Amino acid sequence: MKKRILTGDRPTGRLHLGHYVGSLKNRVRLQDEYECFFIIADLHTLTTRPERTGELEENIRQLVIDYLSVGIDPGKSTIYLQSQIPEVAELSFIFSNLVTVPRVERIPTLKDVMRDSNIQIPSLGLLTYPVLQSADILMVRAHLVPVGKDQASHIELTREIARDFNRLYGETLPVPEALIPDDIGTLPGTDGKAKMSKSVGNVINLSDDSETVRKKVIGMFTDPARVHGNEPGKVEGNPVFVYLDAFAGDGDMKKIEELKNRYTKGDIKDVEVKEYLFEGLERFLVPIRKRRAELENQPELIDKILREGTEKARTEAQETLKLVLDAMSLNYFSVKR
Amino acid sequence: MKKRILTGDRPTGRLHLGHYVGSLKNRVRLQDEYECFFIIADLHTLTTRPERTGELEENIRQLVIDYLSVGIDPGKSTIYLQSQIPEVAELSFIFSNLVTVPRVERIPTLKDVMRDSNIQIPSLGLLTYPVLQSADILMVRAHLVPVGKDQASHIELTREIARDFNRLYGETLPVPEALIPDDIGTLPGTDGKAKMSKSVGNVINLSDDSETVRKKVIGMFTDPARVHGNEPGKVEGNPVFVYLDAFAGDGDMKKIEELKNRYTKGDIKDVEVKEYLFEGLERFLVPIRKRRAELENQPELIDKILREGTEKARTEAQETLKLVLDAMSLNYFSVKR
Repeated sequence: MKKRILTGDRPTGRLHLGHYVGSLKNRVRLQDEYECFFIIADLHTLTTRPERTGELEENIRQLVIDYLSVGIDPGKSTIYLQSQIPEVAELSFIFSNLVTVPRVERIPTLKDVMRDSNIQIPSLGLLTYPVLQSADILMVRAHLVPVGKDQASHIELTREIARDFNRLYGETLPVPEALIPDDIGTLPGTDGKAKMSKSVGNVINLSDDSETVRKKVIGMFTDPARVHGNEPGKVEGNPVFVYLDAFAGDGDMKKIEELKNRYTKGDIKDVEVKEYLFEGLERFLVPIRKRRAELENQPELIDKILREGTEKARTEAQETLKLVLDAMSLNYFSVKR
Repeated sequence: MKKRILTGDRPTGRLHLGHYVGSLKNRVRLQDEYECFFIIADLHTLTTRPERTGELEENIRQLVIDYLSVGIDPGKSTIYLQSQIPEVAELSFIFSNLVTVPRVERIPTLKDVMRDSNIQIPSLGLLTYPVLQSADILMVRAHLVPVGKDQASHIELTREIARDFNRLYGETLPVPEALIPDDIGTLPGTDGKAKMSKSVGNVINLSDDSETVRKKVIGMFTDPARVHGNEPGKVEGNPVFVYLDAFAGDGDMKKIEELKNRYTKGDIKDVEVKEYLFEGLERFLVPIRKRRAELENQPELIDKILREGTEKARTEAQETLKLVLDAMSLNYFSVKR
């Protein structure tokens, strides 16, 4: 039996190179070793932007196209829609009775999300968000959850809920673990900020066309202390070189070393390094764009993948809810579910 | 089209005469004029006693027997199990994004429940309870909700949620109204306290046997200032007379007037009034006990009523969730629900 993984995304817009380096690339690797569930967490978007549901359908379609174009394989993994599985909400309500209000108020991401989304007064939904996420994880009885450090507190809550449930109602739920791979980096924004972020506008999307990518690369932040190409420059932490390293193919290493040496000595203009980066990114993006274009023309394929994935995930959710209600002595009067 | 009503009970124990006078009697009347849904709110019990789920099945069975024995008719009304309808939890989560945390923290019943259940730190489930109750009401698209004054704040929240949803996503949900009938009283406890309450132990249950009822009536609180039967006594607010009035048949009025006069003048002992009350209660309780005994022998009938009622309510919940997701543009990719 393969171990199970749950991870996914809120469908709030296009995926970018930062998502690829920080998560998607890893997911593609994980699909062979693990049984992967990729949740499209549309209910979670309600916690910060309940008024913007009109854009979800197109966002979801593009998200699935992004997934498939980088190599996520619906033949191996399950891609599913959170909102179409009411059982997860019932699990979330059940779990919410095992968690105190101060406990969820203390979760550090709450303050971060409120700041980032400019929310002064949280909704009950926003406060509930980490418990719903726990239900997402426990619903598929996942063993491992690949997360960034910022989400580690959510896995801790999920583990507490699973342990508390098992203690109160008997051994029922696996206690999942966070999977934080060593070799995963984060990609800085094109403006040199620590992270790519759509809201900041410092991203290169997987779906950007060639001209857009060129413009963004040419406009990239490099070493701010360096004004002319004949001045010595700093390579470390320089976004252009971070990108070069992140997207280097096997044959590129020698050339990248050479560029780094010349840059350190002040023997190359920024624009020349950027041209080389642009070409490298294009080698990565051209096949993705090609697959994207094919998928854009097959809306019924995207429908089918989501339909089948959601049905499969729902079967898991129904099974978990049954296990949970059984453990609680709440499966009674032979009501058909 | 009949208007719809939702009301119900948490399955925490036997129903008593206070429930009958304050609610059940009215429900029996309402069933002809309205389409009634009676929710057995088992999920709500998790908010205050998550560790006591083992007793729910028997409590529910007895609750249904109590319902049927006083005249609630499953041929007219729908009796259903909240926990077996995951759609209501999804509606509750959706609605929780329209309600701020301070708004639910301000609901007066939260403090009352915490005091009564000896809870120092509320769970997230307890904080969510009024929103889940709103989802119960809106799930069947009820027009009217019979409530005591203590629950009026929950109906106000439900109305706010329905209005906010309609404003944000378009006219979808009926805005329900509280139904507070004029002619409904509350029955004091046998100890003279304002309300019958199982936790206080001052109740006469619909399922009490004759001997138990006699003991409870003989031990009842009367006029505390009156020591001997030849002293003038107070009739008003005297529980024995409140009970006599509440359970008087058409032929009893003259006799009760006579007892009141004699009591006021100091011309009758407490025990004589109590004997008369006991006989009156027995006339009310004997047929209920008879129906209870018949129903106790038909567990498969109770199963059937709950199964069919829950299936009917679930169909309503699925329809409401579909309406809600349609309004939010969240019904996509033709996923089967």
